This record gives sequence, structure tokens and C-alpha cells, in this order.
Amino acid sequence: MTDDLIARRARLMGPNVPTFYRNPVHIVRGEGVWLWDASGKRYLDCYNNVPHVGHCHPRVVQAMCAQAATLNTHTRYLHDLVLDYIERLTGTLGHGISQAIMTCTGSEANDIALRMAQAVTGKRGIIATDNTYHGNTAAVSVLSTRRPPIGGYPGHVRLVPAPDSVRPVGGTLDGQATAFATNVARAIEELEAAGHGFSGMMLCPTFANEGLPDLPPGFLDPTVAVIRRAGGLLIADEVQPGFGRCGSHLWGHDRMGFAPDVVTIGKPMANGHPVAAVLARPDVMSAFREAFGYFNTFGGNPVSAAACLAVLDVLRDEGLVENAQSVGAYALDRMRALRHPWLVQARGTGLFFGVEFVTDKGEPATEFVSELVERMVARGFILNKIGRHGNTLKIRPPMPFSRENADSVADALGQVLAETPMTP
Amino acid sequence: MTDDLIARRARLMGPNVPTFYRNPVHIVRGEGVWLWDASGKRYLDCYNNVPHVGHCHPRVVQAMCAQAATLNTHTRYLHDLVLDYIERLTGTLGHGISQAIMTCTGSEANDIALRMAQAVTGKRGIIATDNTYHGNTAAVSVLSTRRPPIGGYPGHVRLVPAPDSVRPVGGTLDGQATAFATNVARAIEELEAAGHGFSGMMLCPTFANEGLPDLPPGFLDPTVAVIRRAGGLLIADEVQPGFGRCGSHLWGHDRMGFAPDVVTIGKPMANGHPVAAVLARPDVMSAFREAFGYFNTFGGNPVSAAACLAVLDVLRDEGLVENAQSVGAYALDRMRALRHPWLVQARGTGLFFGVEFVTDKGEPATEFVSELVERMVARGFILNKIGRHGNTLKIRPPMPFSRENADSVADALGQVLAETPMTP
Repeated sequence: MTDDLIARRARLMGPNVPTFYRNPVHIVRGEGVWLWDASGKRYLDCYNNVPHVGHCHPRVVQAMCAQAATLNTHTRYLHDLVLDYIERLTGTLGHGISQAIMTCTGSEANDIALRMAQAVTGKRGIIATDNTYHGNTAAVSVLSTRRPPIGGYPGHVRLVPAPDSVRPVGGTLDGQATAFATNVARAIEELEAAGHGFSGMMLCPTFANEGLPDLPPGFLDPTVAVIRRAGGLLIADEVQPGFGRCGSHLWGHDRMGFAPDVVTIGKPMANGHPVAAVLARPDVMSAFREAFGYFNTFGGNPVSAAACLAVLDVLRDEGLVENAQSVGAYALDRMRALRHPWLVQARGTGLFFGVEFVTDKGEPATEFVSELVERMVARGFILNKIGRHGNTLKIRPPMPFSRENADSVADALGQVLAETPMTP
Repeated sequence: MTDDLIARRARLMGPNVPTFYRNPVHIVRGEGVWLWDASGKRYLDCYNNVPHVGHCHPRVVQAMCAQAATLNTHTRYLHDLVLDYIERLTGTLGHGISQAIMTCTGSEANDIALRMAQAVTGKRGIIATDNTYHGNTAAVSVLSTRRPPIGGYPGHVRLVPAPDSVRPVGGTLDGQATAFATNVARAIEELEAAGHGFSGMMLCPTFANEGLPDLPPGFLDPTVAVIRRAGGLLIADEVQPGFGRCGSHLWGHDRMGFAPDVVTIGKPMANGHPVAAVLARPDVMSAFREAFGYFNTFGGNPVSAAACLAVLDVLRDEGLVENAQSVGAYALDRMRALRHPWLVQARGTGLFFGVEFVTDKGEPATEFVSELVERMVARGFILNKIGRHGNTLKIRPPMPFSRENADSVADALGQVLAETPMTP
């Protein structure tokens, strides 16, 4: 049956359509932190951030269905719900950010954010890290492509070395914040020298795709100063850290202690319903709205808004941000207590963890981590790997993850670590 | 209350966020072809194509809710529904088009389609008409922008004069097909001379945003020949004509009698749930999948697929394509029977109509048509205007539109035409 599905996928979706795992899983049901495959096997979901408040949360499903049965239309007519949502959401943000454009995907949100930076500065040059992902539109994907786009890499993009808590930029952990900022300053000079000018920098406040390095609050202060001096915008891509994932704060940029000009959000926002947004200060929004026309047919429709509001309700009523902090701290202790000769760092923030492995020759243990992932999936734990070399386990469960869940994944990981051959 | 909502929108969404009508409507409920505003006033929806099978169709709502309560996840796991949908959908297409990428918006679909043309040809030059709209991403919006983007209009885009059944390209209706193709050939030469090369042309088979001109099947044959000779791809943007809107055919390109290389679909696909897709032949899909990485988190999730499948079920079980043909023909007869000194053409295809007005001085009756729209809305008929000068009424109701509905909008239009002052 699985082989049949894989053959159908190739026939109907074409080549190179990514699946996870050596033997892709065929998931048919979800509830809370649990997933079931077609054979009835149950998995603890230690990976998915889209079902933020838990798979198929009944309050979100109910809110979405009630609104879908009442009205689903677009923002060219007036409606309360989208305004209620933007008001409530921006109320959590501070930094003068009080306006939003609703979209359907984080990619669309980041695609707009790049144009906001262009509108404010009149320039096009943009900086990101060299091991990131900000989305799949033509404009945004050039920030993360591994393959040269048709026509070549565009000149207005500069990528700086991503921060890393095992192999730090500049060689030392103490000097990394300054070294990172120095590279950003150099990239700005290059963009200006090439005539593109500098419009801004887009970054994930937790550098999630970069490998979730263990960075102290304030790490970005020198970089923020460089960006401000050059007159560029700081765009915080909160698609992964946002909505309380980090436990200590609702937003990753507050945890890191900086004030972004633009915030983009997505995946967890409506628990799987396709919705995302760009949040900005009124001066930034005005500049965008004056320089570019923009309307999104599905963006901010009443059903999406209802689902978004329900997620905020559940986060509050079930204390899920506090849960991410307390269970997250407990789970991180458990992972830090794991012992293995190649385990160099267990790190995390809230309910987002990375466990990195390096061989005794000092090389990334990429194959070893792949094997760990496969064995964990076989045991019924959905997780994956992360970072430049794929040598870091990525654990990022739905927010209702419990201490008991944390114990079971840590116990299983301990056993799998003991059993897995140390082939690099 | 409406004033309050308008003020809240400005505060929370910023300036230049479009609404329809002088006094924007505050819609709170929808059912079938009907909408209700907050005061309880009922409107006949003669405009919205997103609620394709009727507002809040219970079968679509039910399918979406049942799946949302069971599982909503992404295509990195295997699932039947997305494959069932692609199989069923591509089964309606022919022309060797048998594969799809699922996205969340038509903009995302067109953004991919442009890259497909690049991947197949290795070139970037792209052609569209000079009065169109294909979406809101940075890459796609340059095909339709009225304002120069930051950095100026990109050199790889050429816009050719849009076909028109009142003021034909080249001066005569008989010569328009050839004149249109000649302009496309010239644009290809320009792109090649400028070093961009020619990757393809993107067009709506009904030229809906261009004003829905009355063009005979075969109109595009000379253009298709020019595109084929130059080795470019023909991308049919079926976001408006697709899913049986034209009545005689499920797809606009079949009605016009040409074989596209890529088809993009969107708005009506899941009756308002945010979903869209790019459909292509395997050779085109392979070229894209080899040249570009692409994954869309929400694209093709089981809830979207369930909603999409339900729309196909309803279209079939309620005979809505046949309804579009028969009611469409009846409604077009009613509109053609309208008499007014400035009414120059009532045209249409299936349940999509344009009624164009030109003053006795030969100028587009833009203000007059605006006034007609406002008066129709005041009488409880939701419709709008279309085309380069906004002098054409746009009527494009949900597909369950009945003869009785057609009579009531035609009757109302007759009365409003008689009452509205002929101020240009």
C-alpha cells in the first residue's frame, strides 16, 4: 500500500517531491501530540509545529467549521473577524507594530516583507544567512537556494555565515556576535558598492534552519546596530519561533531582545489552516501600500480569521506558552543528561531542541544522525534532523507536549543511542 | 457600525487596502447565491467566483470539517486524498497534462509557472497582455503593475496590447487575431534582442481582466503558432475561466481550442478554502523539479484535498457546468435584449458576462458604469466593473445561479439603466 502510494506520487506529482524518512510514513489520523499510520501504529509527534495547539484541536476545528458554514469571503467586503484578529495579535507585539497584511503562506508573507524593505529604503539589496530558508516564491527562494536560479544568482542578495554554537563564526563563541555583525557590515558595503544599496536583513530570531544554535539574548545587538546605521529594515521571520514556541516569550525577537521593523508569521498560526501574515509599523505599512498594489483573495477571509482566533484562545486557556517553558526546560535537562561519545551539544528554547553529534575525528556525524532518525521513527517517534550538515536532531513537538511525552522520547533516544553503530 | 469598521480597517490594515463600492458592504452571512449584510439586507451575488458551487455549500463544509477533525498535515508524509484529487483533476485535462503541484493561492501557482517556463527554456523573457492580473508575488506582480517597481520595470517582461471586442487590436475584428499574434512575435524578437530570450507567455483564455472580449474559438491559433515556433511555453491561467465557468467546457483553453503546456488554477477550486495548483506535462514538471527545489507546507494538505474533491463532486452531482451553459445562454439573451443608447456590447461565456458602455462621443462611459454598479448594489445586486477603462459591467455569479436569478438581475439592470443620468 505504501509502495503503491509512492508510485502514485511519482506519477501524479513528478520527480524530486520530498518525503521524510527512508520508508515514508502514511499518516491517516492525528489527535493532540499523536499520529497514527494506516496500519494503526501510533507515533508521538516530536516534530510538527504546524498543528501548534495539537493535531485536530476540537476548538479550532469547531471555530473553522462554524464560520465556514456561515460565511467565507474576502476583505473587499467589511468583516469583524479579521480586524478582531489583527487587533489581538498586534496587541502582543509592541515595538510600534500595529498593522498587518493577511496572506495564506509564510512565503507570501516574506515576499511582501522584502518589498516593504524596498519601499522604505528605495533600495533592493537584502541580506540573509547562508544556511536558511524563508520560503518558496521566486523572490524569496533566492535567499536559500542551493542551485543557481535560471539567469544566475541575483546580485542584490548577500548571504553571511550563519551563527553556530559548535563551530562559531569567527572561531570563538565570545567573539561570534561581533564577527557575525562584521560580516553583515561587509555585505552592506558590498551591496552599496555594487549599486544595489541596502534594504534590509531577514532572519529567524532562533536561526532555526541554521541549526538552532545556542545563542545568548543580546547576541544580535551588534548586528542590529549595524543595520540601523545603514538605514535598513530588520525583518524577523517568526514562522518557527513565534506563538510561544520559545516558552519564555511569545516572540523569538523578544527572547533575543531586539526590536524588528517587520515580523512575518505563518505555519502554527491557525493549526494547519493555510494562513500567514506580515506585521509592521504604520510607517512601514504606508510605504509599502504607497509603492505597491496588493490584494490577496483568500488572505484574511473570515474562516481563516476564526481559526486564527481559536488558536490564540487555546494557547491562553490551556496555558500552552507556560507549558512550553516548563516542559521545555524539563525536556532539555533530560536531553542534556544523555551520554554518547559523539553528542557534542543538546540545546533548546521552549519546545524546540537540537541535539548535535560530531564524530571522534571532529566531522559532522551526518549519517549517524540519519540512522538515529530512522530508528526513532521505527520506534514510533516522529522527529528529524537540522542544520548545515544534518548532524543535529530536530525536536519541535506540538505545544501540548507533556513531561511524560518528554520522558518517553528521551528514554527512547537513550536506548537508540546505545544501540546505533557509530558509523560516521 | 460600518464607519467604525472602516476606521478600524485603516488603523489595523493601513492605507490603500481596497474595498468595493462607495459604501463598502458589511457581509455577515452567505448561502448559495445569496449574501446578507449586518442590517439583514439580502443581496443576490452576481459577482463572486470563489464560492463556486454556492456560498457555504454544506457538502464542501462537511468534507472539510470531517477531514479537519481527522488529520491535517503536509505532503512529506504519504496521504491518499491529494493523489486522488490530482488524478481526478488531471483526468479532465488532456493535452498530456497529468501532474500537479498543489499550492495555496493562484499567485503561488503562477509564480511556479513562470519558473517552469524558465526551467524548460533556460530563458527568462515572459509575455503577458498590457491589461491583466496574474497575482501578487514579487515575480508575478510585475506582469500587471501600474506603478514602476523599486528598481524599475524589469527588462525580461513584455506586455502586448490586450484583445478587445469593441476597440480591436489592429483596428478591425477580422484582423485582430493576426494583429495580436504579430505583437507577440515582435515582443519575442525584442526579448531575444535584449538577451533575455523567450521563456513563454502567460494568458487567461477568456482575457477576463482585460474585459472579457467576445473572441471566437481559434482566435489564439496564430499566437500559439508564434509561441511554438519560438520554443516558448504557453501558460493558461485558468483561475477565472476554469472549473466550468464557461459552461460549454470545463476549461477555458478547450473552449478557445488550444493546448497549453502549463495550466494554473485557483480561486473556485475549493469554494473559498485557500488552495490552488499548477498542472503540467511530465516533461515540464521534471524540468522544473530538476532546476528548482520546491515544497509548500500547506499545499496539498488533506483538508484542502477533501474540500477540492467535494467541489468536483458537487459540480458533477448538481450538474453545475450544464447549468452554467443553459442559464448562461438565457442570461446572455436577457442582457443582449437590454436597450440603452450607450450600451455597445453585451457579451459572455457561460456564467461570466460583460456589458460595455460607451458615450455618444465615443468615450468609455466609466463614471456611468460606476454609478450603475452603485445603484445595483443599493438594490441588492452584488456586481462590479471590468476592463481597461472600467466601462464594462462584470457579472460572474456562483455556479448555481438560476434562470430566476438571471431574470431578477436583468430586470433590475433594465430599471437602473432607465433611471441613471447619462453623465459620462
